[in-house]
Amino acid sequence: MKSSAFAACLLLLSTSVAAFQGPPRPARPEPQVRGPAKSEPLPSVADEGGGEPTCGLGKEFHAGRRAELAKRLKSGVVIVRGLPDTRDYTVFRQDKNFWYLTGIESPNATLVMDIEGGTTTLFLPSRKEGNESWEGEKWDHEDPWVAELCGIADVRPTGELLDSLKDLMPAGRKVWITKEPHLALSGCYDRAEPYDRKIAGDPLDGRRSREEKLAENLKARFQVEVADMRYQLSEMRRVKTAEELAALEQCGRIGAMAMVEAMRSTAPGRGEWELGALMQYVHVREGAAGPGYDAIVGSGRNSCVLHYNTNRRRMQAGEVLLIDFAPEYEHMVVDITRTWPVNGRFSERQAQLYDAVLAAQQAGIAAAKPGATIADVERACGKALKDAGFQSLQRHGACHWVGMEVHDVGDYAQPLVPGCAFTIEPGLYDEAAGIGVRIEDVVVITPEGNRVITAGVPRERAAIEALIGDPGLLDASPAK
Amino acid sequence: MKSSAFAACLLLLSTSVAAFQGPPRPARPEPQVRGPAKSEPLPSVADEGGGEPTCGLGKEFHAGRRAELAKRLKSGVVIVRGLPDTRDYTVFRQDKNFWYLTGIESPNATLVMDIEGGTTTLFLPSRKEGNESWEGEKWDHEDPWVAELCGIADVRPTGELLDSLKDLMPAGRKVWITKEPHLALSGCYDRAEPYDRKIAGDPLDGRRSREEKLAENLKARFQVEVADMRYQLSEMRRVKTAEELAALEQCGRIGAMAMVEAMRSTAPGRGEWELGALMQYVHVREGAAGPGYDAIVGSGRNSCVLHYNTNRRRMQAGEVLLIDFAPEYEHMVVDITRTWPVNGRFSERQAQLYDAVLAAQQAGIAAAKPGATIADVERACGKALKDAGFQSLQRHGACHWVGMEVHDVGDYAQPLVPGCAFTIEPGLYDEAAGIGVRIEDVVVITPEGNRVITAGVPRERAAIEALIGDPGLLDASPAK
Repeated sequence: MKSSAFAACLLLLSTSVAAFQGPPRPARPEPQVRGPAKSEPLPSVADEGGGEPTCGLGKEFHAGRRAELAKRLKSGVVIVRGLPDTRDYTVFRQDKNFWYLTGIESPNATLVMDIEGGTTTLFLPSRKEGNESWEGEKWDHEDPWVAELCGIADVRPTGELLDSLKDLMPAGRKVWITKEPHLALSGCYDRAEPYDRKIAGDPLDGRRSREEKLAENLKARFQVEVADMRYQLSEMRRVKTAEELAALEQCGRIGAMAMVEAMRSTAPGRGEWELGALMQYVHVREGAAGPGYDAIVGSGRNSCVLHYNTNRRRMQAGEVLLIDFAPEYEHMVVDITRTWPVNGRFSERQAQLYDAVLAAQQAGIAAAKPGATIADVERACGKALKDAGFQSLQRHGACHWVGMEVHDVGDYAQPLVPGCAFTIEPGLYDEAAGIGVRIEDVVVITPEGNRVITAGVPRERAAIEALIGDPGLLDASPAK
Repeated sequence: MKSSAFAACLLLLSTSVAAFQGPPRPARPEPQVRGPAKSEPLPSVADEGGGEPTCGLGKEFHAGRRAELAKRLKSGVVIVRGLPDTRDYTVFRQDKNFWYLTGIESPNATLVMDIEGGTTTLFLPSRKEGNESWEGEKWDHEDPWVAELCGIADVRPTGELLDSLKDLMPAGRKVWITKEPHLALSGCYDRAEPYDRKIAGDPLDGRRSREEKLAENLKARFQVEVADMRYQLSEMRRVKTAEELAALEQCGRIGAMAMVEAMRSTAPGRGEWELGALMQYVHVREGAAGPGYDAIVGSGRNSCVLHYNTNRRRMQAGEVLLIDFAPEYEHMVVDITRTWPVNGRFSERQAQLYDAVLAAQQAGIAAAKPGATIADVERACGKALKDAGFQSLQRHGACHWVGMEVHDVGDYAQPLVPGCAFTIEPGLYDEAAGIGVRIEDVVVITPEGNRVITAGVPRERAAIEALIGDPGLLDASPAK
């Protein structure tokens, strides 16, 4: 990784750092040489191997989402801020709601919509001299291709944001923001929200959430009425469009492919972490951005720890292995779990539990159709487990929405309609025996019923046992 | 991934969420069943496949770091807070400074040391009923093995932290905290610090850093004098102990192994992301926690973008490929870069630049010895590039400390002593030709001179060309 020019550092260090640290340490310097001129045309995929900026699922999709949001909100000003540059040396991943409304995967952007005025404005940072020769392409307001690529004609520098807002927002006007916590790769509202509350309530911390601060700043600076549009956005996100379903289905294919590879590479003595690493390799090789959530790879008694993800144990013959892991692809996440025997043959007790869970999942899948509700699917799964005599080994429900988040947003009381996507994941946990069994797939509601988009990985015991016997990638590249 | 029990959700949703979202969405519920009793003995590695709690590099190492810190600070109270649970569905990674002083890889812990009193206290959260059956082992103050494992006898519940601090800290007492930004996997102070400043200065955000808030809260609540110990900690971290060097060397071996695999798997038409994914697989398979920083895989003109990490382009014959990627192992990070031809044969121009960079690196390595300074090594590299006539193609310096952060902390003006670890990474960037060449290794200063701990990946052109011709893992498992 690049270090700074030592000489340049001496000049560039902030005085505060110097004061804390004594003599200077290298800060990231301004680069000394500019990148290619920004007015050059984008290289074509054919000539240059691809990699140029793109607009999410296509500008029409994102424009359609903005139009639908405006229709649901009826009036007011909408403000959605994209995420800043990363705090770590990691790839930038956009906030999910900002991306949903723009498709822009680049930092420090803001979307402003005046619903009555019918205007949409994109605020982008100014081009920092030479920044891109260090960081690669970042969208800025001077990039000539921005308006055409993302379909927003009015592109302005971020430096004009506050003045523009002042023009748009007389005191008392209604301003919509979303108070769903900002989230990127592996993020989920039901984890981020308690985290943000905990920080805010910590007597030695007390930082309020990004969303609370935005609301507070808008009220104080502009005397506007700040309203939360998370319910409207969540309800839009609950029903996927054709573009989202195409991405979700590809995500399901990739996730299933990786799970099959994990089955092939299972063997006694192997580390849980090895199978997680193998699956993430397959995910990213196939075009995924990375994990939709970190791998849960639980062998033996770890199969009974529902969110186990330290993955530091070696699996043993006679145990089950439970893997719950799936990728994010084009901001869409699926959720897949399978359970199998480490030595390739289900024991009698393992098979008994497995077959009960599989039957419950099949009952749930049969209940998933337009007009039914999530509660109907839950009841079908629960009844099957109860009828099999295993009610006492249940520890969780079977369904949650999936989409941009692994536990996606959306109203659970609404009837299912085509485009709804959710998991069916019954599980049984015999803690005394150290056997946890969960089988999880994602279904998409269709006019006729549903389609299981993660069916690329088998569920029948015989098919799974056969795969474990196949040679796998870890057999070809064992740990050294 | 586990969903909530639907019925349980209805009871558990906070009213604020319900108000925003309309009908309920699933929040992470309280689990319905307890995990194994905490008083059971830890399973042994032999019986159970490992995976039980450990204490970093060993309790003696961390106790030694605390003793050294106390010696350097002389008087006062030290407070270091570990990180809370993750905000995303990701594996918990401890704050680097907290880990350095404790070895504890578990959330919501606090270390308090009274230097004059000679006491050390560890505050851990209370055991939450059933939490571990969802999340796996988390250290709590009731765990009977904590004191023995980490070597801190005085373990108390976090609920007593404020009262204990009040007893320890009469108004006016000196209290040491570190204002280095909190960091975990892939984090680095020189990225986090500008980020935190930017958020604090953003008129629509304005959140202050965790460290600023801690200082403010301590001053307001206890009327103490808050001092910053980051310089003392940084200077300790600059000189590695034997335990740290052993971890760093293993990190170097793993990083080199992955880079060799990337060379073997290089071929025209392959995606930059594929090689990044392959390397991360090797890192984690070999026991690394994950990336020390996200992969920089730049083909063609991307080799000239110093921190390029979007990795979305397909490499072409005739181009160079520059990969700058290394893992984190036991909280230690190395930093490795190699550059090679996509088609396996250096062109004349590529070879000319490559040989100049390699000669510069060798000059730098020759200059790295006790008593010299980083500036001496920089000068040796720079002189070699200048003598070769390539001064105008330089864009950065050659050295930075490595350790727990990829650009590690430590005073750059101090003379090198055994145990110092840093990069030597000269580079040349012919932007007109789209050829960037960087060669980067980590050296550790020894009494005799230095040892290159990343030498497992070749630097000579002929050896590299031979590796590219070998069959690789991506040839055995191509993208589908």
